[in-house]
Amino acid sequence: MLAKIKRKLLGKALPNSVYVHQRLSNASGLAVLSSAALSSVAYGTEEILQVLILGGTGISTLSLPIALAIVLLLGIVTLSYCQTLRAYPHDGGAYTVATENLGLYPGLVAAAALIVDYVLNVTVSIAAGTAALTSAVPALQPLTVPLCLLFVLLLMLANLRGLKESGKLFMAPTYTFIVSIFGLILAGLIHHSIGYSVPNYSVVPTQESLGIFLILRAFSAGCTAMTGVEAISNGVTIFKAPESKNARLVMLTMSSILGVMFLGITYLAQVYHVVPNAKETVLSILNRDIFGSGFAYYFIQASTLLILILAANTSYSDFPRLSSLLAKDSFMPRQLSFLGDRLVFSNGILLLSFLASMPLILLQGSVNSIISLYAVGVFTSFTLSQLGMVRHWHKERSRGWFISAVINGVGSVATLVVLVTIVVSKFRAGVWVLVIGIPLIVYLCSAIHQHYRYVSKQLGFTRTELAHRSRFSHVRRKNIIHPAIVLIDRVHRGTISAVKYASTIANEVVAVHIDIGSIDRELINCQWQELEGDIPLVILDSPYRSIVSPLIDFVDEYELKHPNAFITIIIPSFVPRHWWEKLLHNQTTYFIDAALNNKPNRIITTVHYYLR
Amino acid sequence: MLAKIKRKLLGKALPNSVYVHQRLSNASGLAVLSSAALSSVAYGTEEILQVLILGGTGISTLSLPIALAIVLLLGIVTLSYCQTLRAYPHDGGAYTVATENLGLYPGLVAAAALIVDYVLNVTVSIAAGTAALTSAVPALQPLTVPLCLLFVLLLMLANLRGLKESGKLFMAPTYTFIVSIFGLILAGLIHHSIGYSVPNYSVVPTQESLGIFLILRAFSAGCTAMTGVEAISNGVTIFKAPESKNARLVMLTMSSILGVMFLGITYLAQVYHVVPNAKETVLSILNRDIFGSGFAYYFIQASTLLILILAANTSYSDFPRLSSLLAKDSFMPRQLSFLGDRLVFSNGILLLSFLASMPLILLQGSVNSIISLYAVGVFTSFTLSQLGMVRHWHKERSRGWFISAVINGVGSVATLVVLVTIVVSKFRAGVWVLVIGIPLIVYLCSAIHQHYRYVSKQLGFTRTELAHRSRFSHVRRKNIIHPAIVLIDRVHRGTISAVKYASTIANEVVAVHIDIGSIDRELINCQWQELEGDIPLVILDSPYRSIVSPLIDFVDEYELKHPNAFITIIIPSFVPRHWWEKLLHNQTTYFIDAALNNKPNRIITTVHYYLR
Repeated sequence: MLAKIKRKLLGKALPNSVYVHQRLSNASGLAVLSSAALSSVAYGTEEILQVLILGGTGISTLSLPIALAIVLLLGIVTLSYCQTLRAYPHDGGAYTVATENLGLYPGLVAAAALIVDYVLNVTVSIAAGTAALTSAVPALQPLTVPLCLLFVLLLMLANLRGLKESGKLFMAPTYTFIVSIFGLILAGLIHHSIGYSVPNYSVVPTQESLGIFLILRAFSAGCTAMTGVEAISNGVTIFKAPESKNARLVMLTMSSILGVMFLGITYLAQVYHVVPNAKETVLSILNRDIFGSGFAYYFIQASTLLILILAANTSYSDFPRLSSLLAKDSFMPRQLSFLGDRLVFSNGILLLSFLASMPLILLQGSVNSIISLYAVGVFTSFTLSQLGMVRHWHKERSRGWFISAVINGVGSVATLVVLVTIVVSKFRAGVWVLVIGIPLIVYLCSAIHQHYRYVSKQLGFTRTELAHRSRFSHVRRKNIIHPAIVLIDRVHRGTISAVKYASTIANEVVAVHIDIGSIDRELINCQWQELEGDIPLVILDSPYRSIVSPLIDFVDEYELKHPNAFITIIIPSFVPRHWWEKLLHNQTTYFIDAALNNKPNRIITTVHYYLR
Repeated sequence: MLAKIKRKLLGKALPNSVYVHQRLSNASGLAVLSSAALSSVAYGTEEILQVLILGGTGISTLSLPIALAIVLLLGIVTLSYCQTLRAYPHDGGAYTVATENLGLYPGLVAAAALIVDYVLNVTVSIAAGTAALTSAVPALQPLTVPLCLLFVLLLMLANLRGLKESGKLFMAPTYTFIVSIFGLILAGLIHHSIGYSVPNYSVVPTQESLGIFLILRAFSAGCTAMTGVEAISNGVTIFKAPESKNARLVMLTMSSILGVMFLGITYLAQVYHVVPNAKETVLSILNRDIFGSGFAYYFIQASTLLILILAANTSYSDFPRLSSLLAKDSFMPRQLSFLGDRLVFSNGILLLSFLASMPLILLQGSVNSIISLYAVGVFTSFTLSQLGMVRHWHKERSRGWFISAVINGVGSVATLVVLVTIVVSKFRAGVWVLVIGIPLIVYLCSAIHQHYRYVSKQLGFTRTELAHRSRFSHVRRKNIIHPAIVLIDRVHRGTISAVKYASTIANEVVAVHIDIGSIDRELINCQWQELEGDIPLVILDSPYRSIVSPLIDFVDEYELKHPNAFITIIIPSFVPRHWWEKLLHNQTTYFIDAALNNKPNRIITTVHYYLR
């Protein structure tokens, strides 16, 4: 039944041979890799305004200079990543770059930051997408959390089926979104220039005096607009040759588009005096101011929802890939490195869906408080990746290494400054979670690594042992004693079947019955003599009505008499036709197994008798 | 750890030899067996008033005639039960009497009614006890449900420890309660006769016109005051000889006390114009009116709480005893008939606590709606038990049988009329649950019975088989083939240990590795040749990365080559030091076991290798 539902939902299993690596044109590559970055404009401006509004309506003019500073930072990071693309044409992810150049622990910190990054990218993108939907259709507001979870579920299923990052699927929504936002900006500028007056100009009282701290907080909030720009460095291999050059070209294009969109929206939000509120997104308010509530408005909201879902989807390829990488290096449970039926890392997809859903449920789909956590994850990986690059150039000293190192150095310092700003300004607003969380993830990874090393050390053979391999060779010894103990409750067909098996595998069989007072002792003895007279039956007293303790004593004693022998303990068990019928029978088998199964020479075997 | 906590809470295990049957004096016997009946006065009057109040303040004078009718019924039932005590000096429970005289299904209906009775006795008594407490201390009102559950938990633990129904423990609270209530009635009568005016006389508007239906409903609600009188018929054996006579004496005494207390409280409630409300019990209002809020008031409330807890406790000996009886007759899961560590039917105690807690949680501790369900359970068992007695006398025809039969006949008709009245008048108020529930319980009991019969038929031997017992005799055949298949993931110490076991028990061993692409095939082959060259290794392709399906195919084919042989499939498994470390390893063992373990000749065995 379950297997059938799984087939219906996920499709047939795929053989290994189906796997092919596809290459994309630059236009398709941009569509596939830029959704996370471009979609950030859906919430970047809003984040700035939500901080600035605390200083009253007057200072919202500060949003534009702050946005300009962020675009400058974006430029630095973009140039810095272009250097990475040049040096790591196969996999320029922060984990790889940091591990190779800075060592194990910086690499693990980068990995932990990326895990946070990928998980919160899903959370934030899905929440923002749902906000775009509920802004347009306020009736859906009460369904925010179920809608968020529905989107996560759909992404999960699509990716478990093995959603290919096909250019076709991604191009339409991405380019539609770009055109939509440019259209919105253009229309807004024209509207404004012909002297359109804003209907919802409302004065907000000052709650907090203007100070450098407020500006820093607004700046660090706005940096969320930069999330996702690192995606291209993870996906260089999908470009056609020359991969590295094409990737750099796409990176520059993407950053330029992102910068222009972000500046445009921030400028319009300022001249349209948009005041953020909890019920409607800034982008939706702006959209409604410019286009009214007509077709154009709904079209732009829909394309915003779509790009945000695509943005969440990028984590569905990045997270399973990173976790399989970590699992192969023994830093995560091995199960994360297994390819599922549909040739995807199913366990990683399930884990990501679970982790991303938790904050959605806990925070009821309102993610303002964790958007700064997302930024911390992103900027930590930015910083470490670029620090790694500085070290890389320093080690390599190829032609022009110094300029490259300087670019990456400036990038790493800039992102580090932003990182510190975010941590300091938002520490009490939730960022402390990561100050504990990231070291905890690193600790867990290294604990897992130690466990796997310990296991393989325990299980493997030393050279000396291999040399004397006769130790492990077991020529079948004719006269070896292999005893078996058969547990008897009542004498019935199941018992007989178990005794039959026992006398097949062992050359010394003893039957044991534990008398807890439920069955007549004489009857058992009599039936036994009649049916199995040639095998001894031992009846153990159990005044405390426990099956387990007299049995443990008996087996311990029996083992003393048979040192160095495997002792097979056979439990007869009958299997009824339906699972629920098991409720009507004692589950003693499990207790016995749990109580006895703790010595290497004891083998507990259940012989099933199937009822017709 | 868990075992330690269990020891602390429940005490050490007791051997069978500790069990002794104790006998009680009549005074102690009354204390032990009457708490359920006597405590009914805590809610009986209230139930009548809650119905009558719908007819307005004017008709509350009807409560006294209704109470008189109930006491008359109580008299009939008491006399009727005295006949039962005479005929069944060992166990006069409704299940036994109905089964013996009316047959299987009436017996099961009686059993189902008793189950409902015992469960709801706990629910109603605990809820009423908590109401006595929250009436006295209104601050505890919001904690009603947790308090109810706490009392259930305490009863459960006390009974799991093996609370003896010792006269000592029960006498003080029972007699204190009797004295308290008589004191209350006396003080109330004196107060009233010296012309004390009632402070809280409030006029309640008429919500429903007075009619025969309202009176019938009030009557049937008041019949809850009779719950618990059957207890003595279940406990005849605790009396000293002559048991039957002593039991009858105690029964008559108890019914007289109950009748007087019930009439007294109902009369006082009428003359004091007590109006029932949701926050305070009628008994508490009356108590406060008579004694004010002084020591006497709190003393009486406390003794009410205590007797109600004792009343709930009677179910803790009756329910496990009944369910063990049913389990021994194969009408309930056998586990209910096992004596636990402390010589009590632990499973029955746990089941009762669970069942009784459910309505407390679902109805938030307000049990007005289920008190009529309780009455249905009680009156169904009354009716069946007495009908059974009529049949008993008719069959026996001993001296004076006709008079006895008439008494029981009148009793059964009277209780049947009440039963029908309750069912009709309260059908839509919840009693329909039992109209479905009791037949459902009967159906379940007989389905369980059928299952056990089917199992014992399947497992047992026919006479012909026993005659030709050579069929089951297995003289050890020297040349029998017993093959074993060892599953190999990697070649390590655990694998070697499993192969060693395989060559101990089998004379044809084959190792199987399933290639899901995770490990290098050549490496495995090479290591195998080096360590276990004498045992063949088969490597199976698994292009779909499934461990299970290629293995099933292989085993199926292998079985065709070895017909009529037990085939042991050995899975090596290593056991890490801590349970949580298992999360880091594949749980393939369970999947393989579940997938393969479906043929009688296949034995799946796990050989553990313990990591240090």
